[in-house]
Amino acid sequence: MARNTQVAADHNAPPITQILAQFVATHPSRGWSDAVDHEAHRTFLNWVGCAVGAAKHEAAAAALGAVRMLEPAPQATVLGRKDRLDMASAALVNGITSHTFDYDDTHLKTIIHPAGPVASAVLALAETQGASGRDVIDALVLGIDVSCRVGNMMYPEHYDRGWHITGSTGMLGAAAACARLLKLDAQKTQMALGIAASQPVGMREQFGTMTKPFHPGGAARAGLMSALMASHGYTASPKALEAPRGYAQTVSTKNDWTQITGELGQRFEISFNSYKPFACGIVIHPSIDACVQLREQGVRPEQVERIELKVHSLVLELTGKKEPGDGLQAKFSVYHGCAAGLSFGRAGEDEFSDKVVNRPDMVALRRKVVATVDNSIDEASADVTAVLTDGRRVHVFVEHAIGSLENPMTDTLLEGKFHGLSDPILGVAPTARLLGACWKLGDAADVRALVGLAVPA
Amino acid sequence: MARNTQVAADHNAPPITQILAQFVATHPSRGWSDAVDHEAHRTFLNWVGCAVGAAKHEAAAAALGAVRMLEPAPQATVLGRKDRLDMASAALVNGITSHTFDYDDTHLKTIIHPAGPVASAVLALAETQGASGRDVIDALVLGIDVSCRVGNMMYPEHYDRGWHITGSTGMLGAAAACARLLKLDAQKTQMALGIAASQPVGMREQFGTMTKPFHPGGAARAGLMSALMASHGYTASPKALEAPRGYAQTVSTKNDWTQITGELGQRFEISFNSYKPFACGIVIHPSIDACVQLREQGVRPEQVERIELKVHSLVLELTGKKEPGDGLQAKFSVYHGCAAGLSFGRAGEDEFSDKVVNRPDMVALRRKVVATVDNSIDEASADVTAVLTDGRRVHVFVEHAIGSLENPMTDTLLEGKFHGLSDPILGVAPTARLLGACWKLGDAADVRALVGLAVPA
Repeated sequence: MARNTQVAADHNAPPITQILAQFVATHPSRGWSDAVDHEAHRTFLNWVGCAVGAAKHEAAAAALGAVRMLEPAPQATVLGRKDRLDMASAALVNGITSHTFDYDDTHLKTIIHPAGPVASAVLALAETQGASGRDVIDALVLGIDVSCRVGNMMYPEHYDRGWHITGSTGMLGAAAACARLLKLDAQKTQMALGIAASQPVGMREQFGTMTKPFHPGGAARAGLMSALMASHGYTASPKALEAPRGYAQTVSTKNDWTQITGELGQRFEISFNSYKPFACGIVIHPSIDACVQLREQGVRPEQVERIELKVHSLVLELTGKKEPGDGLQAKFSVYHGCAAGLSFGRAGEDEFSDKVVNRPDMVALRRKVVATVDNSIDEASADVTAVLTDGRRVHVFVEHAIGSLENPMTDTLLEGKFHGLSDPILGVAPTARLLGACWKLGDAADVRALVGLAVPA
Repeated sequence: MARNTQVAADHNAPPITQILAQFVATHPSRGWSDAVDHEAHRTFLNWVGCAVGAAKHEAAAAALGAVRMLEPAPQATVLGRKDRLDMASAALVNGITSHTFDYDDTHLKTIIHPAGPVASAVLALAETQGASGRDVIDALVLGIDVSCRVGNMMYPEHYDRGWHITGSTGMLGAAAACARLLKLDAQKTQMALGIAASQPVGMREQFGTMTKPFHPGGAARAGLMSALMASHGYTASPKALEAPRGYAQTVSTKNDWTQITGELGQRFEISFNSYKPFACGIVIHPSIDACVQLREQGVRPEQVERIELKVHSLVLELTGKKEPGDGLQAKFSVYHGCAAGLSFGRAGEDEFSDKVVNRPDMVALRRKVVATVDNSIDEASADVTAVLTDGRRVHVFVEHAIGSLENPMTDTLLEGKFHGLSDPILGVAPTARLLGACWKLGDAADVRALVGLAVPA
């Protein structure tokens, strides 16, 4: 995956987000001339006239048809809670929660986390409609194929530019999956993709904030609503993805169209999906794995003078936070990842809790990690040497971390991870029942039975 | 406004929207190997575990707090209809209808239609909360200032690249306006802008379809929801707009930061707003105005041998549809615009109806329009010569069309336009009452009185 694409960046921009926020929050009421205030009334009046005038247009009818499908709420469940919402809101919230711990799946060719946008949209719609498990699995495979193929087409330029590719392709996968579940014909499916094409979600600057997990949630909601709108006859450009001023050429200067068409229907991108053993960004995994292996070789934190870490530049660009202030920030700190791996032999959600991240011994240990860039090392690898207080050096090179395609998590490891996440919320026995339902989803007559098992007692 | 920015475009891309739609709609159920189907179950299972595990996270609580504000629906009105919806859906639909006729306002420096995203979001929220008219006007001025300043910062590169700048800046204006209406402090307003920054909406390829008016609607919904989320403590990057992998640098290679900060709080961008006298894209207006003037000089369609039209290249790039098939397409046809101006002396919504667009005399007249590019002519001007069957030539040059900043519509003309739009929906007397309420909005104790006047009897 190593590469050297450069995108020019201005690191000295003024703090315009803060400046505008301060202005909006504090500028006095009517703090402008009478002419400006009159222009505001003209603007409002003209807008009201335009909205009233088009109230009977077929576009209004189609949009209304779609949003009326959100009634009557509640329709769909927030997994792990008793809350039930309209399906668009449920898709949003499940998309957020499934990515909140940065613990979900990864399509390694593109660093897309494909399930968040697609599964969140599909399950909310499927629950609302009482769809079968087979229809859900079909929609999931096809939707993920769409978003990952679009990602293949644009990666890496699109990602390097700043897009969080999970949310900026995910609305297409979600729209495709929901169109499939709604059994839309090819023409309406094309419209659903077209409407979704106008709604890429997410920039990488949001990493380390709640808006990162918002991206798959927002993409799920956007894709679901696009399919609902298309089902009511809402139209989009039939060339929305490929046209010169369409989606692909607007959000990427690299567009390898053959990635869409090559082996379509024969090669499925979900085959290249992987699952995280560690609750943080995928690029940290080789470093954590190496530190877990150091621990397995007998190295203990109190023996360590220094940890020498050599990684590809992208690892530090994405996860170079030296002094994370909380758990969310620690997920973007390769320093904390190494300290957790060495201290605990694992890096699940607990090891990224605020409490652990702020423990003095963890702060001290991660300050002993000295990271250097070595672009001869692949992004998916890490070279780690523990220099001990007695002068000894213990070296581990991880070519492919656990959870990679070359070294995948087994079904048993996946179940263990699931229990680690779900036991504290649902309890051990209910979690086991939910696991069983997930494995048999393709045979389920109605997906609502599975969803019911994800609600705490 | 003339310029020569070039963005490379691939005009020979394969029809991938259609190819993917066909695939998604028709690929057989379980049309893949057992290994793929098992991977789909692993993907689903892993996603469920992640979602359940994060169900109690504060991000879930903040998002839930926001979407719970959409209950109990109905909360807000679709203008010109009896429908009432949750406020996010109302913002979406009013954003769509207000731009459906392409008849709304234009910030000429950027070709942004600022009211659609901002007013749609603000009014839906204000109605839900029973806010005062003064608060609505304040929010509108400040929100429009935000989106237009961001537009100034990036125009023209951002637009040339393919973004429909109304929706790709509008979510920021909508978020700012709703944050103001919610009386969020500067810090939470900054978060609202940050969440919205991840959600630009719209590409120019959608022009001529229902997804064009979706853009202001989608931006309104996105901005409103961003403010609601921020009010519940949802976080985003405090540098979401300006950081190297933030909004501005991801969606534009031109970023003139001084356009944000220059004369902030002194110069208000709403002062540069203008209102369309013709129900179509602004770049056609000078050509229509010229043809209206030809008619005023006595030229009649039946006398015309040929209409020679000289315009800037952008006019034909945006509105070069020679044979529009319906009213929506005709809004992107300078040929139809000229025919309407000459035939009727006006170009309101009626003159862009499917019926008028397909009239044989209109088809014949627009085929007589011969357009040529002359980039010495400004985008805001048009040079038109009617060549008559008797050999006479009648020439009109329009430097600034009616409705431009230099030649603005008067309040009286605005009222006439409003009646033309609203009379068929609400009736003449109710329209007059609604007009009166709009002019006095700044003094209204509760905006719901005005909204009630926009509902048909």
